[in-house]
Amino acid sequence: MKRYERYADEIARLIADRALQPGDRLPSVRQASAHRGISPATVFQAYYLLESRGLAEARPRSGYYVAARALPAPAEPRLSRPRRRSSGVEVSELVFEVLGSVKDRDVVPLGSAFPSPQLFPMAQLARGLAAGLKRLDPWRTVEDLTPGSARLREQIALRYRLDGLEVSAEEIVITNGALEALNLSLQALTRPGDTVIVESPTFYAALQALEQQHLKALEVATHPRTGIDLAALAQALERHTVKACWLMPNFQNPLGSLMPDANKQALVELLAAHGVPLIEDDVYGELHHGTRRPPPAKAWDRAGGVLHCASFSKSLAPGYRVGWVAAGRHAQAIERRKLMTTLSAAVPSQLALSEYLDRGGYDRHLRRLRPALARQQTLALRTIARHFPAGTRVARPEGGYFLWIELPASVDALALHRLALAQRISLAPGQLFSTDRRFRHHVRLNHGHPDDPRFESALQTVGRLAGELAAAGRVA
Amino acid sequence: MKRYERYADEIARLIADRALQPGDRLPSVRQASAHRGISPATVFQAYYLLESRGLAEARPRSGYYVAARALPAPAEPRLSRPRRRSSGVEVSELVFEVLGSVKDRDVVPLGSAFPSPQLFPMAQLARGLAAGLKRLDPWRTVEDLTPGSARLREQIALRYRLDGLEVSAEEIVITNGALEALNLSLQALTRPGDTVIVESPTFYAALQALEQQHLKALEVATHPRTGIDLAALAQALERHTVKACWLMPNFQNPLGSLMPDANKQALVELLAAHGVPLIEDDVYGELHHGTRRPPPAKAWDRAGGVLHCASFSKSLAPGYRVGWVAAGRHAQAIERRKLMTTLSAAVPSQLALSEYLDRGGYDRHLRRLRPALARQQTLALRTIARHFPAGTRVARPEGGYFLWIELPASVDALALHRLALAQRISLAPGQLFSTDRRFRHHVRLNHGHPDDPRFESALQTVGRLAGELAAAGRVA
Repeated sequence: MKRYERYADEIARLIADRALQPGDRLPSVRQASAHRGISPATVFQAYYLLESRGLAEARPRSGYYVAARALPAPAEPRLSRPRRRSSGVEVSELVFEVLGSVKDRDVVPLGSAFPSPQLFPMAQLARGLAAGLKRLDPWRTVEDLTPGSARLREQIALRYRLDGLEVSAEEIVITNGALEALNLSLQALTRPGDTVIVESPTFYAALQALEQQHLKALEVATHPRTGIDLAALAQALERHTVKACWLMPNFQNPLGSLMPDANKQALVELLAAHGVPLIEDDVYGELHHGTRRPPPAKAWDRAGGVLHCASFSKSLAPGYRVGWVAAGRHAQAIERRKLMTTLSAAVPSQLALSEYLDRGGYDRHLRRLRPALARQQTLALRTIARHFPAGTRVARPEGGYFLWIELPASVDALALHRLALAQRISLAPGQLFSTDRRFRHHVRLNHGHPDDPRFESALQTVGRLAGELAAAGRVA
Repeated sequence: MKRYERYADEIARLIADRALQPGDRLPSVRQASAHRGISPATVFQAYYLLESRGLAEARPRSGYYVAARALPAPAEPRLSRPRRRSSGVEVSELVFEVLGSVKDRDVVPLGSAFPSPQLFPMAQLARGLAAGLKRLDPWRTVEDLTPGSARLREQIALRYRLDGLEVSAEEIVITNGALEALNLSLQALTRPGDTVIVESPTFYAALQALEQQHLKALEVATHPRTGIDLAALAQALERHTVKACWLMPNFQNPLGSLMPDANKQALVELLAAHGVPLIEDDVYGELHHGTRRPPPAKAWDRAGGVLHCASFSKSLAPGYRVGWVAAGRHAQAIERRKLMTTLSAAVPSQLALSEYLDRGGYDRHLRRLRPALARQQTLALRTIARHFPAGTRVARPEGGYFLWIELPASVDALALHRLALAQRISLAPGQLFSTDRRFRHHVRLNHGHPDDPRFESALQTVGRLAGELAAAGRVA
């Protein structure tokens, strides 16, 4: 951790502990520099980081203050209460119907699952690819087939090691994005008719995967800040025969929840005790807004039962379709399924990532990307606080680019989606995120397009439309 | 068709009709040129083409003669006689065990499924990709997601139109190679437990796909020259409830058989009458050794029931993982399944193909590639005729790079595979190509590595080993 990050963390802790209160002035740069023996530039960097995380704000000619946060701070959404039985899955039609508009540039993409493509170092990736292809030995087109380029797998294993995880290149299979890694994991662990545990709410692509593989979903209560409820999970494991869990401990989609480390450890131990493998979807872990990448649950895996799925698609190279799974003792089963279904990830894409990682730009890029997402989250939360109807609840995730918004109960999210779309704004209505369309007054909102000048006013429009629906609902 | 190709075709027809016999002298270049009013260079080109197809041979200072063909010409393998009931599929373990060695450069890849990577214009593809990436609008990483780059789909549709097929860009879904196209087609058409018709023998990847999707295979007799037996197919359709057919009308893997046009038309009509969709695997169609790309069965599709799967992997860009399916009325179902499983093909790979196709080098490349494969086939057939045991049967496919060899019944192909591997030579034993390991004295041989100096002597070694096994079998 850099010096300025350490200093920012200290201040953040004081704010969290309420030792520093909203509106309090932070030490002047000169004071802090003298007091701590750090350079003024370091203090500036720390304050800038706090600002990007929405914790501090600069006042012209006056200095830095603890941010007033969203005014008034909305409450966080409530814990979900899913059904206690498993059920077949039929969500795809609705997903396709609702998300058909996301590729249209004229529509403000609040409903998109992707961050803005402008956020990524496309030119550098292209240069690396061009240079790599020039030197490419044609035999690599055979040798880099599944399980994938040996060099790239080594580089990924190295990143795990730098994060303190013992993951060997041998257990890594390169896939066409994390989505394929997750699908292959599911295939390797289940047969049609089996039951799989997911969060409630859960990412619709997980539900679609279950649907397509003729599996049953068992949804377990999940907290908007701390992730899956371990007591509810333990109960579910007692009551049901479960073949796998598909969870997102880091910045869950759609909640943005982050499981505390202790919960992750307990989760891995609980599942190991029941002999249930964990399919860990960790595509947002690199997009934390703080100073430390939260460890994946895989960090506590002793038995090789965690299949850690991740990718470069959301954090570095959209469209390159390079993901992977560190599959522990299931690596061979995954590799075989990969061979049988899509054979291999694209060799040029693997090469581009390898070249880029070798040149060492990834962490530098991430240090730019994270505050861009965090600042836009602050803007979104402020706009919601000011323009959404009373009773709106929203959590403040510590990473990623989604906000999960609980609207007043009288607002139907599908109706809101249709009204917004008429204004050329997309939304992801809550109904997409469970098997029984339970989250009918919730929406998932993407704030990953900081370069989109239409963002703030689009969000205001959604707030106004929600207010109108809420008022109409109260009357009716 | 070029003038020299037309002239070569005329001569080839005379040879096929036995108007010209093995050993006959062809007209001298001067004679032919004067007689036909074509330039000597054109005659040379035609004779060179005939030579590359194994139909003519040059004798020093004497001119061109009708080739003596393989001496003595081995008989073609017999028509298969598969079981008449469908069965579950468990072939994967054997496939993985046998084919594990194919990526090893030290092993002569007679068992490989791929042609030599040296045959492809890797440098030109890389240049196109680099140029394209420089101009890439980042939004394309969103817009080129499934169903794929609009430009590439238009280019593929154009190639269909140039071949006289009416296929619109709208029904084309870009996939991660043809293997994914085939798998997605199967997913879209079936549910676990359904029965699918395949050829006998059939490509092991088809069997693996059925296995993985918990489907039953119904194998239908297939002729080594003319493809699936239509009478046997009609019977199978009467007797069984079948959800799809997965067939390779052009240069079937492993047989190399090519269905005559009339058979293709009858096939499409028969399946349409039964309401059974055809999954057409056409990855070798571009690799014909003659002058005309054989039309796919899709050319006779009136009802949109043919899902035509193809790719660039075997003919232009190995490792790029770009294939497609022209899915007729099943296009939307395929697109949705693609979205749910791997999201999209890699954008850089799609771009590379688009750029390359725009520059117009594909057909020029194919005109070099085809004779290279055809010449190597001639070499392989001669070597087999001279070095394999009496009773060996082999067909002479008109395209692709596989030979299907029926050895004397006493030779166990798995034993031969093990002996060959000990000599650093891989083979694809016949047992891989059916659900019941029926083809136990057959092997599939890859002659798609004309740049490999070890090819001829490796093939001689295999012949010697087969001879030893045959002799031991006769004694036992």
